[in-house]
Amino acid sequence: MNIYDVSKRAGVSIATVSRVLNGNPNVSEKTRTKVLTVMAESGYTPNVFARGLGLGTMKTIGIMCSDSSDPYLANAIYHLERQLRSHGYDSLLCCTGTSLENKRIYFELLLSKRVDAVILAGSKFVELIDKNNDYLIEAAKEIPVMLVNGYLDFPGIYSTVCNDYQAMYDAVSRLIASGKRNILYLYTSHSYSGLNKVEGYKNALTDHNIPVRREYIHQCPKDLHQSKKLMNKLFGIGLEFDAVMTSDDSLAVGAVKYASEKKIRIPDELAVIGYNNSLLSYCTNPEISSIDTKVEQLCTTTVETLMRVFDGGSVPAKTVIAAEFIQKQTTNF
Amino acid sequence: MNIYDVSKRAGVSIATVSRVLNGNPNVSEKTRTKVLTVMAESGYTPNVFARGLGLGTMKTIGIMCSDSSDPYLANAIYHLERQLRSHGYDSLLCCTGTSLENKRIYFELLLSKRVDAVILAGSKFVELIDKNNDYLIEAAKEIPVMLVNGYLDFPGIYSTVCNDYQAMYDAVSRLIASGKRNILYLYTSHSYSGLNKVEGYKNALTDHNIPVRREYIHQCPKDLHQSKKLMNKLFGIGLEFDAVMTSDDSLAVGAVKYASEKKIRIPDELAVIGYNNSLLSYCTNPEISSIDTKVEQLCTTTVETLMRVFDGGSVPAKTVIAAEFIQKQTTNF
Repeated sequence: MNIYDVSKRAGVSIATVSRVLNGNPNVSEKTRTKVLTVMAESGYTPNVFARGLGLGTMKTIGIMCSDSSDPYLANAIYHLERQLRSHGYDSLLCCTGTSLENKRIYFELLLSKRVDAVILAGSKFVELIDKNNDYLIEAAKEIPVMLVNGYLDFPGIYSTVCNDYQAMYDAVSRLIASGKRNILYLYTSHSYSGLNKVEGYKNALTDHNIPVRREYIHQCPKDLHQSKKLMNKLFGIGLEFDAVMTSDDSLAVGAVKYASEKKIRIPDELAVIGYNNSLLSYCTNPEISSIDTKVEQLCTTTVETLMRVFDGGSVPAKTVIAAEFIQKQTTNF
Repeated sequence: MNIYDVSKRAGVSIATVSRVLNGNPNVSEKTRTKVLTVMAESGYTPNVFARGLGLGTMKTIGIMCSDSSDPYLANAIYHLERQLRSHGYDSLLCCTGTSLENKRIYFELLLSKRVDAVILAGSKFVELIDKNNDYLIEAAKEIPVMLVNGYLDFPGIYSTVCNDYQAMYDAVSRLIASGKRNILYLYTSHSYSGLNKVEGYKNALTDHNIPVRREYIHQCPKDLHQSKKLMNKLFGIGLEFDAVMTSDDSLAVGAVKYASEKKIRIPDELAVIGYNNSLLSYCTNPEISSIDTKVEQLCTTTVETLMRVFDGGSVPAKTVIAAEFIQKQTTNF
């Protein structure tokens, strides 16, 4: 029993059987039932291992993220799923946490499910120790590996990244142009994107003849209460600062809370800039100027690139999307 | 070629082959490779239609939500995925939007994918017009349909709900006990949960001999700027209110912004209560008292119930989880 027999026995075209197999919604309820009944009665099973033949692929993409409840990643997953669906692909979601071990286990799991490709959402999937990326590089010889805001230069790995370096460089340059000199830098992680951001901060200072000072650069958990606490501590030890640049809106929210409690005027005495322009940046009073990292565009481009890979077309290994500064009330540019 | 042949040829137990098929991570890399190689070489394919036999099911659960970027639903999806994974099940994610037509198309799609069950996250999946739920009731004759915070009393449909009615009743009663009399009620939707909440509000007023007044109850889009605008409008027409109860934190954020701009003192002149106790309720100054709807517990219970259904055990059609009031700075209880 093969797909031709199913089509004959059900009295429909092979294309229709294929549509039923691929879950295409453009099949009537009656036809779907007929085709599935014939399959069930005859014991026909699509060959789940015959990937790449169009018919019989699982039409499923694995999406890995560290934590789908993070506002940035939640947004990314939403757009990835919608975009994949519009191309007829299912989304198999995996929330991996951040340990390398778990990321590997999940990745192996997706491979064992015979997904057509894996999308890694968020820059935490690119490890800074080269050999820890070997499992991705190996897998990319078999199926496309798509990085959303991460970059690895290897065959079969395709990256869509936001130009975090430039966004950070420009924002810090604007702070300097507005008269700020003592600019704190708070960041959450040493990811691919995290490293680009801090480089942007440092180079903007250097290019404006402001020294890069270690005591102005601090790592902080992605938690508004922690960043508030950190700023109180820096204030307590007498560090002078007139602006805070952050790598995530949650840290900027803590900065606004700190200023509010200390009756420090924003933006005159303290300018604050967030990152990702999430809902959080709109909740505070004053609302936080932030950087729109174009997550929807990043995800749309990732899926479009993947479709071009499937079609065998020519595909760039890396596509760069420009971020946009969103002026709100915590800066006076 | 069947599973016994695969186990023999790969030199491993049938249980191990089953673990590889089901994506169980407790299989060594070497063993998994061996088993998958034997399968690929011999053309063995697990019977994707033989659901319910343990071996050969897809071990995949469809998760439907209207919008995975909504903070509440993003949280729910995270916990559902993690919990399903711990039981060896994949999560096939579908972001359906809110139109009934799209919800139906997605549901049909999941059925055609032969998922083992469907979890509907969020109370927007229970339609208020009975016949619009027929597609769920029909499907529940074939596979378990799990509702996270929704309720339909039909065979094969299992609900885990938060006691929104009681949570709202208690919160409004506390507002009244603290001296508030003119309590606004802002809500986002007429969902199952939405109706329970407004009933809690109304009954709390009635039980304390306060009249329920139409002009104090308003629907508002889930958008902090819209709720701020609405409150400004109500203030503008001279409506007097000393408290705002909301059905979602985003509305409460708008209320705090309104008060801040109008220099209205919180909570003395205006008490504000949010709903869901999301990250948003911690971003404002003052932080917003809110109701923790126990999304993790709701999701854990949903998945545990589903596993009991699969095991053929006795399962309640409805499990109720108690919400918890989280006192912060916008109430003085």
